[in-house]
Formats: sequence, structure tokens, C-alpha cells
Amino acid sequence: MNQTLPSAAVLGARAFAALAGLNRFTDEPGKLTRLYLSPAHRQAAEWVKGAMEVAGLTAFIDAAGSVQGRREGTVPGAPAVMIGSHIDTVKDGGRFDGNLGVVAGILTMQALRDAGIALPFPVEVVAFGDEENVRFPTHLSTSEALAGHHDPAWLDAKDEDGVTLGEALRAFGGDPAGIAALARTPGSLRAYLEVHIEQGPVLEAQNEAVGIVTAINAQSRAQVRVTGEAGHAGTVPMALRKDALTAAAEMALALEAVAGAHDQAVGTVGVFRPEPGATNVVPGAVQFTIDFRAPLDATLAAMDAAIRERFEAIAQRRGVAVSITTYAKAAAVPMAPELQEAFAAGIARSGSNLAARRLPSGAGHDAMAMAAIAPVAMLFVRNEKGISHSPLENMTEADAGLAIRVLLETLLELADGSA
Amino acid sequence: MNQTLPSAAVLGARAFAALAGLNRFTDEPGKLTRLYLSPAHRQAAEWVKGAMEVAGLTAFIDAAGSVQGRREGTVPGAPAVMIGSHIDTVKDGGRFDGNLGVVAGILTMQALRDAGIALPFPVEVVAFGDEENVRFPTHLSTSEALAGHHDPAWLDAKDEDGVTLGEALRAFGGDPAGIAALARTPGSLRAYLEVHIEQGPVLEAQNEAVGIVTAINAQSRAQVRVTGEAGHAGTVPMALRKDALTAAAEMALALEAVAGAHDQAVGTVGVFRPEPGATNVVPGAVQFTIDFRAPLDATLAAMDAAIRERFEAIAQRRGVAVSITTYAKAAAVPMAPELQEAFAAGIARSGSNLAARRLPSGAGHDAMAMAAIAPVAMLFVRNEKGISHSPLENMTEADAGLAIRVLLETLLELADGSA
Repeated sequence: MNQTLPSAAVLGARAFAALAGLNRFTDEPGKLTRLYLSPAHRQAAEWVKGAMEVAGLTAFIDAAGSVQGRREGTVPGAPAVMIGSHIDTVKDGGRFDGNLGVVAGILTMQALRDAGIALPFPVEVVAFGDEENVRFPTHLSTSEALAGHHDPAWLDAKDEDGVTLGEALRAFGGDPAGIAALARTPGSLRAYLEVHIEQGPVLEAQNEAVGIVTAINAQSRAQVRVTGEAGHAGTVPMALRKDALTAAAEMALALEAVAGAHDQAVGTVGVFRPEPGATNVVPGAVQFTIDFRAPLDATLAAMDAAIRERFEAIAQRRGVAVSITTYAKAAAVPMAPELQEAFAAGIARSGSNLAARRLPSGAGHDAMAMAAIAPVAMLFVRNEKGISHSPLENMTEADAGLAIRVLLETLLELADGSA
Repeated sequence: MNQTLPSAAVLGARAFAALAGLNRFTDEPGKLTRLYLSPAHRQAAEWVKGAMEVAGLTAFIDAAGSVQGRREGTVPGAPAVMIGSHIDTVKDGGRFDGNLGVVAGILTMQALRDAGIALPFPVEVVAFGDEENVRFPTHLSTSEALAGHHDPAWLDAKDEDGVTLGEALRAFGGDPAGIAALARTPGSLRAYLEVHIEQGPVLEAQNEAVGIVTAINAQSRAQVRVTGEAGHAGTVPMALRKDALTAAAEMALALEAVAGAHDQAVGTVGVFRPEPGATNVVPGAVQFTIDFRAPLDATLAAMDAAIRERFEAIAQRRGVAVSITTYAKAAAVPMAPELQEAFAAGIARSGSNLAARRLPSGAGHDAMAMAAIAPVAMLFVRNEKGISHSPLENMTEADAGLAIRVLLETLLELADGSA
């Protein structure tokens, strides 16, 4: 039956053509900026709805602004497989982030329809609208709506012009009162699958077109304050200093070492502010941030303990004080092992000689929300230079085509497993 | 003859009383702020002139605003010994910085006069007015005037209100046209001696009331820029990072190590700015400053070479670029060995069981300017907590008295050496 399916090359060409169509819709001419519930978002949603219908799906724009499409299966009452991603972007974002996953779902369903292939389960394709969390201080609100975790307080969240999410949703044509009814019943979804451009350089470095995500990493963020003693840069001998900056520098290197010592973990100091911050003054204090992530909650906890132990030891040895205030923490979201295997089988079935490379996701995705009500899995696609959230984000047409072909074969694998 | 001289305790009490009198004059009530050529500076200069006259000196306020006092010696034509320091302060400064050295000179001459002691050489006491370089972007302009290096361009330097130094000097009662004539002839001064509160914690740590300065340190300042690659804090694996911040952190520690490895040297990173400076972004660049100082020019040069070598090695190992732009460099000003010995003899003669501790000066002083035309030496007095340029600057009355007694004995030592 597979001989009737389009090749990866054809799928890649179709994907780039579809992305060119979808990405005409932007809030800022000359850039790709498509914020949740903006006019460009509405136009893009209409385009997606039309594309879904052309691909043989029944489609509608839901109360929260997501586009939902569905094709029924041959087995009555079978739980659905959902293919999703998002069509909102950051300001001046990339072409593939989110959009590729939506286009991949549509093109997959179109190819199956064209080949006359019916699946034993319903397939849904969803284009979420609030993944980047740029316009409102919310978090994955459109996928949380399907997961039954949309917080009504989010409707009062305001954008930078003072417009609430509820007001923006009504202006968009959505229905705040209808959001609660979007919640899916746990058990009604067999799987949630998401294809997404990798937001880092791992696949490129490993020379792989696609990779199977193992988990969305656990994450911890903290403010660290080191307090030493300010002094004259010329008159305080080295042996008498309590230099907060060199202490903090040592801590930054300790964080780097801790991250390097834990499998697939990362650790970053992004903000670093010495006080008073003058050329000729030994800094009396430094405020810096730490952000560290790992695929397993246990790894994150071990890193947290190691970081605290090392920071305390550095502070004690240097006669400075250190305080570590954790202000954000998220548990890891593991991808369902059976769906990772299904992706691996899909890769094998694609006949492309791709390796089934596994990697964690360091960034958040709609799959995090969907994991509350369904087994979830993600397939990453190679990012040309690892650049994300930038117009320089890029991938090859060949890689896009391979990823869609793998998604298609993965659906067939799940269908075979249902038989 | 010494039995007729006042004890250190008496000199300390006199010094604190004199400082209380002098420090009534401030530009900001409730703080000690006395900027060059301000009304408070004029009042303080008049007070100093009066105190000099009471101590038996012939005194005047010179064309540049310094107060000069002189008592002739018994040997006609003998070169003078000058005792100097400054009466300008930083904004909200300490009571002792500069002022103590002027008061020490006056009280020493008063004690000698009261004891009926004549010296074989003239002694001059000078209260400079522009040591802190706060109001105008100048550098030791009043002592440079005596050294013959007053730059006429300085008269056009403006304060933050747009008033030029020349205008301020005329308003003060000075005479821009008379500055050139203030220059002393090289050879006309046998010595320039300055008593000054230490601006760091060395003497306190060593439990010494006074210390003999070996040199005003050579100094170098540079802007350092490290350029790596910005990336997503969650998605770029540690092994693929070119993190500018951890590279810069390692460089800060390398500077600390280089300073620690060179005798009496210091090294400081005071400014440190990661870019973009966001919690979830691996810094793509860091801009930081380095300030390093050492008593010998050769030591500074060795440090400079070591710093460049280490920074380059760190950059190479981490795959980042580093540029080091030196923007200020000053040669060391060694204190005259024979005058250091005179101070040591003065300490021994004071009968106080003080050690003749030697230490470099990490900060600049009027002695730097005077070194161009005279052998110079400085005596530091213990700073209670090493705090400088702050109202918290402090010393004990006992230490102030000991320092003045040492200065007095040092003059007698020089007199004995002249005999």
C-alpha cells in the first residue's frame, strides 16, 4: 500500500509550499510575528481550517482560538490519535517553530486520504494558538484548555496594551464561556504526537535529520546573591578581600561542571550583576541567575543538591555569604515509551536509513499540557544552525519531508498495532 | 630636648580637635563634601592659613587655591622640607583623608616652635586643593602646579554645572595667570613628606598604627570583551556551547590568581556585563573591566603578559574570542629610599615600639606629582576598618597622635642628618 504514498521529497516540497502560504499572515510586515488572538492569528487559523478541509478533515476554530480538524476511523469508538503543534510565534520568529508540526499533520492526513488509506482510529490535527506565551502572561493556555486545565483567571491576564485575554478572545471570534467544554475526557485520546523543529544544535551536531524526544526536561531557576565586602580596587590586598565577583565566578564555573557531570543536563548563568559595578571597586555583592534542566526529576534534584553544596563550600572558603532563592521549578514530562517506540518503528518503516536518535527537549511544548490526559511523544527535526526564536531559524526541505514521512509511517505503525 | 615635645596622646587630642574645626566647612550640611574651589574649600583654606599662622608659619593662599605655610631654617639657602596633603574631599567623604596630613604638618611645626626647636632647613606645610579630582576632570592639578606641570588646558575643564576651572578659581579668589609662577625649582626641595590615612585594611590586619609607603603602585586598566555564541539555555547541550560568561568567569579567576602570584599586587574585575543578560539565554558576549596594580613597573608588565597569555588560553580552549583594550596605564612612583629610612628612624625615635612596616599605596596621592621635583615619602596611618571615601572612614586618636609624633621625630632625624 505504501507505494501509493508520496515520497519524502514530495512531502518536503509540499511542506515548504504550505509554510509559505501560512506564513503570509503576520502582525508585523517584513517579519513573522503572530501573537495569540491577533488579526494575523485569525487569518492563519482560517487558512489552517481551509487546509484541513482540503485534506479531508472536518475542521473548526474552537472557543479558545485553536483550530481542530478530525477524520473518523474505521473502528467505532476507538480513541483518537491527535497530531498537534502551534501557529502562534514569538516576535520576529522563525518559519518552522510550531507551524511545521501543524502542516505535518495536515499533509499526513492529505497523503493518507489521497492514497485511499483508512485508519482504525480517528485522527485529529490541532493548531494551538498560545504556545509562545508572548502576548499574555499565560502558559500553554490553548492546549491546557483541551487538557481541562484552562485557568479562568487567565481571561483577566492583560497584554502590554491593557487588553485582557477575554476581550481579545471575543474580538478574535472565540468564546470565553465555551472554553471549559473543550476539555477532553482522559482516555479519549490514544496518543498526542507533535513534530517540532529542534530549538538547539544537537541533531545538526550528530548529523541526524530527526530525533525522538525522551522527555521535556525538568527545570529549576533561582536567584543567587553573593555578599562579600566592597573595597578599593587599589588598596585592599588580595589576601584580605571578600570579593563577591570572583566568588560568583567560581560558582558559575561550578554550575557548569555540575551540568556537565549529569547526563543530558544543562546549566546556565544568564544574568550577572556586580555591585556597585565600578572599575575601581572590588564588588561587595553579585546578583546572578541560575537555570538548570535535566530529563529526570531525580537528576534535577541531584543537581540542586550538588549546586547548593558547591556554592556553600565556595562561599565558606572565600568568607562571603550566598543565598539561593528558587523561583521557578517544573517537573520533567517524560514521553510515553510506547510512542517513542512507535516513532522508532516509523523511522524504520520510512526506509530512509535514519537512526532513531533520542534526545531530551530543553524547551517547553504543548505536549507538556497534553501529557495530563494522553500519552505524548515528540519528533524533533534538525535545525540548520541550532538557532531558535529568530528569523535565522532554518531547516532543509529534505529534512522536513523526512519528518512528515516518519509521522505518516508512525500512524501506520499505530494502525498495525491496533489491528 | 625631646622631653619638651608633646606626647603622642597630646598630639592625638590636638589633631582630633583641629580636624573637628577644619571639618565644619562642607558644601553639604550633614556630610563632609568639600570640592575644589567651592565656598567650603575657601573657608577651609582660610582656617588652615589661620592655623598655620598660629603655629608660627608665614602663610598664604596661592594662585591655584592651595594654602602654603613656611618657617625658615637656621642654615641660609638650605633646601626646604615640605609636608603636604589635601583639604578637598570626595562627596560625603571621610574626616581624615587628606585633612589629617595637613593638620599633622601644622601641629608638628607648632610643637617644634613651642619647644623652641629650630631646624637647619626651612619647613613648608601645604594644603593642596584638587587631589580627589571630583569636581573637574583634572588630576592632582594643585600639586602639579608646584611641580611645574599644571596644564593650562585644565583651566577650561568644566564641572557638572558647566563652570570652568578658570572661572571657579577666579570666584574663589585665585589667579589663573599666577599658576605658572608657583612652579618650584627642582633642587629647591630636599623632601616632600605626606602623612595620610591608609585607604585599605593592611595596617589593621597587621595590627600596626603606621606604615611606610614603598611606592605608589603602577596601574593598568583595560576593557575586556569575550565573544562566544548566544543560545537557548534549555536546548544547547553543554558540550556544544560557546558560553561567553563561563569563559569570562574563568578569566576573572585567572586575574585573581595572577595578582595573588605577584608580590603586593592586586587585580580586580569591577564591571561585568553579560549580553543579552537574560535568565534563559546562554550569554553570547561579556564585557568586563580589569584593573591591576603593582609596586614595580616590571611587575605590572609581567602581570600584563601573564593575563594576556591566560585569557588567550582560556578563549582558545573554550572556542570564544577575547579582546583586551588597555585604556589607562600609570607608571609606579617609588618613594625615596633615604626618606623611607628617615621615617623608619623617626618611628624608632618615637619610642613607641612601633614596627617600621612597609606597604605600597594602591591609590594615587599628591606625592605622585611632587615626585617630579623632589624626593617624596609617605607615612600611612591605620584605617579602622579599611573603609575609604565614606563617612565611615575612621582611625583612633591614639594612632593619629603616634603618626604626628613620628613625623616630628622624622624632621628631627633629617635635621640630625643635616648637622
